[in-house]
Amino acid sequence: MQFPSPVSIEWIATIIDAKITGNKNAFATGINELHKVEKGDLVFVDHPKYYKTCIESNASFIIINKETEVPDGKALLIVDNPFEAYCKIVNHFRPFKPVHSMMSESATAGEGTFIYPSAFVGNYVSIGKNCIIHPHVSILDHCIIGNNVIIQANTVIGSDAFYYNSKKDRSVWYKKMPSCGRVIIEDDVEIGAGCCIDRGVSHDTVIGKGTKMDNHIHVGHDTVIGENGLFAAGTAIAGVVNIGNGVTVWGQVGISKTLSIGDNAVILAKSGIGGDLETGKIYFGSPAEEASIKKRELVWIKRIPEIWEKVMAKK
Amino acid sequence: MQFPSPVSIEWIATIIDAKITGNKNAFATGINELHKVEKGDLVFVDHPKYYKTCIESNASFIIINKETEVPDGKALLIVDNPFEAYCKIVNHFRPFKPVHSMMSESATAGEGTFIYPSAFVGNYVSIGKNCIIHPHVSILDHCIIGNNVIIQANTVIGSDAFYYNSKKDRSVWYKKMPSCGRVIIEDDVEIGAGCCIDRGVSHDTVIGKGTKMDNHIHVGHDTVIGENGLFAAGTAIAGVVNIGNGVTVWGQVGISKTLSIGDNAVILAKSGIGGDLETGKIYFGSPAEEASIKKRELVWIKRIPEIWEKVMAKK
Amino acid sequence: MQFPSPVSIEWIATIIDAKITGNKNAFATGINELHKVEKGDLVFVDHPKYYKTCIESNASFIIINKETEVPDGKALLIVDNPFEAYCKIVNHFRPFKPVHSMMSESATAGEGTFIYPSAFVGNYVSIGKNCIIHPHVSILDHCIIGNNVIIQANTVIGSDAFYYNSKKDRSVWYKKMPSCGRVIIEDDVEIGAGCCIDRGVSHDTVIGKGTKMDNHIHVGHDTVIGENGLFAAGTAIAGVVNIGNGVTVWGQVGISKTLSIGDNAVILAKSGIGGDLETGKIYFGSPAEEASIKKRELVWIKRIPEIWEKVMAKK
Repeated sequence: MQFPSPVSIEWIATIIDAKITGNKNAFATGINELHKVEKGDLVFVDHPKYYKTCIESNASFIIINKETEVPDGKALLIVDNPFEAYCKIVNHFRPFKPVHSMMSESATAGEGTFIYPSAFVGNYVSIGKNCIIHPHVSILDHCIIGNNVIIQANTVIGSDAFYYNSKKDRSVWYKKMPSCGRVIIEDDVEIGAGCCIDRGVSHDTVIGKGTKMDNHIHVGHDTVIGENGLFAAGTAIAGVVNIGNGVTVWGQVGISKTLSIGDNAVILAKSGIGGDLETGKIYFGSPAEEASIKKRELVWIKRIPEIWEKVMAKK
Repeated sequence: MQFPSPVSIEWIATIIDAKITGNKNAFATGINELHKVEKGDLVFVDHPKYYKTCIESNASFIIINKETEVPDGKALLIVDNPFEAYCKIVNHFRPFKPVHSMMSESATAGEGTFIYPSAFVGNYVSIGKNCIIHPHVSILDHCIIGNNVIIQANTVIGSDAFYYNSKKDRSVWYKKMPSCGRVIIEDDVEIGAGCCIDRGVSHDTVIGKGTKMDNHIHVGHDTVIGENGLFAAGTAIAGVVNIGNGVTVWGQVGISKTLSIGDNAVILAKSGIGGDLETGKIYFGSPAEEASIKKRELVWIKRIPEIWEKVMAKK
Repeated sequence: MQFPSPVSIEWIATIIDAKITGNKNAFATGINELHKVEKGDLVFVDHPKYYKTCIESNASFIIINKETEVPDGKALLIVDNPFEAYCKIVNHFRPFKPVHSMMSESATAGEGTFIYPSAFVGNYVSIGKNCIIHPHVSILDHCIIGNNVIIQANTVIGSDAFYYNSKKDRSVWYKKMPSCGRVIIEDDVEIGAGCCIDRGVSHDTVIGKGTKMDNHIHVGHDTVIGENGLFAAGTAIAGVVNIGNGVTVWGQVGISKTLSIGDNAVILAKSGIGGDLETGKIYFGSPAEEASIKKRELVWIKRIPEIWEKVMAKK
């Protein structure tokens, strides 16, 4: 999330009760979790295992629970509980704001757009021109919908990320990381019925121009999908995935988190993707491989009884 | 889609600005895409690869982008862009008609039917007697629901087909083919929660009498399902599939497009169906085979290390 | 289902027109189907194959279609159609009660809870403190939601069980077994968007304290899930499953009915679970095995061509 304007880190230190070391006079331009952090951002870290990664990331300001060295120009904000401090900042800039009608007064929609009376449109949502928003669609706060977009019935745009701070030595193991990112849906996109597109936990989930999705698609937080993609029913894409342009994904595929899928890759139905995929290739299986390799493997499996017979014949 | 009454093809040629060759004085009774085309129908074709198939199909009238021979009694309607012409005809007979309340004034429901206040019922929908339509169900235009039907919460009946005219030499690769078909749900059917049943792109999607569906089921456009079927949660059925009577499909199964599934076939959980299935047999796996064959195969895989040892022992 | 207070079985015999044998003066405390039956309960059986199991179960009172011996202290209620009798009792105690607004007058919600205007809350629902119920959520009759619970958009809590009385010698093979159970969601739970949690057919479906669910999760009737579980998107859990504490289930997993999953078990993405799982182990595959075994098996499959070559080389 980018702040509305740069924020003095001294002021941030005050609201989270932190000690600052390093570049005390700087201004933060946003806050992000580690995967999406950019120059000028705040980030938090609460486990020694990740101290180094965070301090050396693009982040300029690190909320941390240990005083340690800090690179030139960066600053540490030292607190007992960095996760709680992160939540405090996020909730300050994105406070929960109830909506008491089907369309928030701060939401806007362009000319030629029709929103069914039973669709819900949250705070600060922006919908472009010539869109159709079908019955029982939920578009939650801050999401941005382009022009000529169709969102079919009962789809959710901007559900919260499935993202928790996890510690198994307390009674509630998983504490919700508040989602301050958005969903951005570009022009000429169609999203089928019963889909759920999560907002970014700290950045944006993006569905690129001209991409078409079937029913029951899940897209995780901070995932970025390119242009002219085709996604068939029942496919689930985890968080922080990068999908290129012109990708075709058939039904009931699963794609694991933080992967990269090359342009024009094709994933056949029911595949499970656990690693990056190359541009223009066809994949199949769970775990998936190039479809030609996988298909040869299926033929080899059929030949096991023949191999057995040959081996036994030589006894 | 059948037209409300037969339509002169000369009049159709006027609205799409077409040149007619062949039987100019005929009347078209409907319009369909190739998979579902019937005698009296208009169909369109825009790729030389499919010219012959379309001209020789059941279609009586072919909207085409090349002047060519036409069988006796049929007519060609020659235009530059047959896809745009098809859309123009469909949109003429099924124009988008906004609804400004939770139940369209043109919708009807029989005696003893209860529709929760938060369900949406679109234009020209007909619901039979003694049905329960649960909260946040969306029943879209022109769908027909029989008697004694239960549709559980947040299910969508009549979402648009996932069907696009595809050309990769323009900036938007996939252009929406408007869905003018319906969903027909026969008597005594129950549809679980969170399901999406797509309307036919040009014909009807049908759920047969007495069939029961669990939650999160997807049914694609123009698919026809028989009577007394049982479909467990998370199953996705693609478009233009023909499923017989008494079929049992367990959870998270995927069925690919345009297939035929025989009466009383049983598909075990998580199977992926890529070919037609025979009557009364049990299938498993992805790609699926008869369950008995698949299970034997799994046993053979377990024996590979034993085969390896035998082979190595003979060195 | 427990009755509001103990009910004389003579009175029950009257409403279902049954002949009583055995302990005629007893009082029934509830009614359950066989999987969940407890002492004091009524149960029904209509097939000779299950007579013995039902009569020897925890049930105190058996609705049955044959006069037979009955253990001391128990009673039989003999009728022609035990299934219809069961339905009659259930419908007497849980009659269908229409709701004409978005929140039933008999529903309650605690301090600090925000319910979006487009959420539906049914009869006798109880929602705790500091909850957020997002747009287009459906919470159906009798469900109980704890404190600090988040239910994301378009999720259904308390859909009916996928549970039918099945007889293939009548025109409608599957007759709906009315669901009289509830869903109980304990404190600190989060349920993602587009989920469907079925109520118990006769008992309770429970989501334990601190458990977090992603989008598009299906939970079947009477399933009991422990504390601090983590369930990723697209997972489907069938009915009457028992899941321990601290269980982690990745995306698109399927778990078959009536299974037990041990504490802290981990199920990797896309697995299909067909048997009980042990405490603390990691599972993968469909059908699933311990992940280490399954991974070794995948390596062995890759070696089949090598084995083939060795075998052929010896010719």
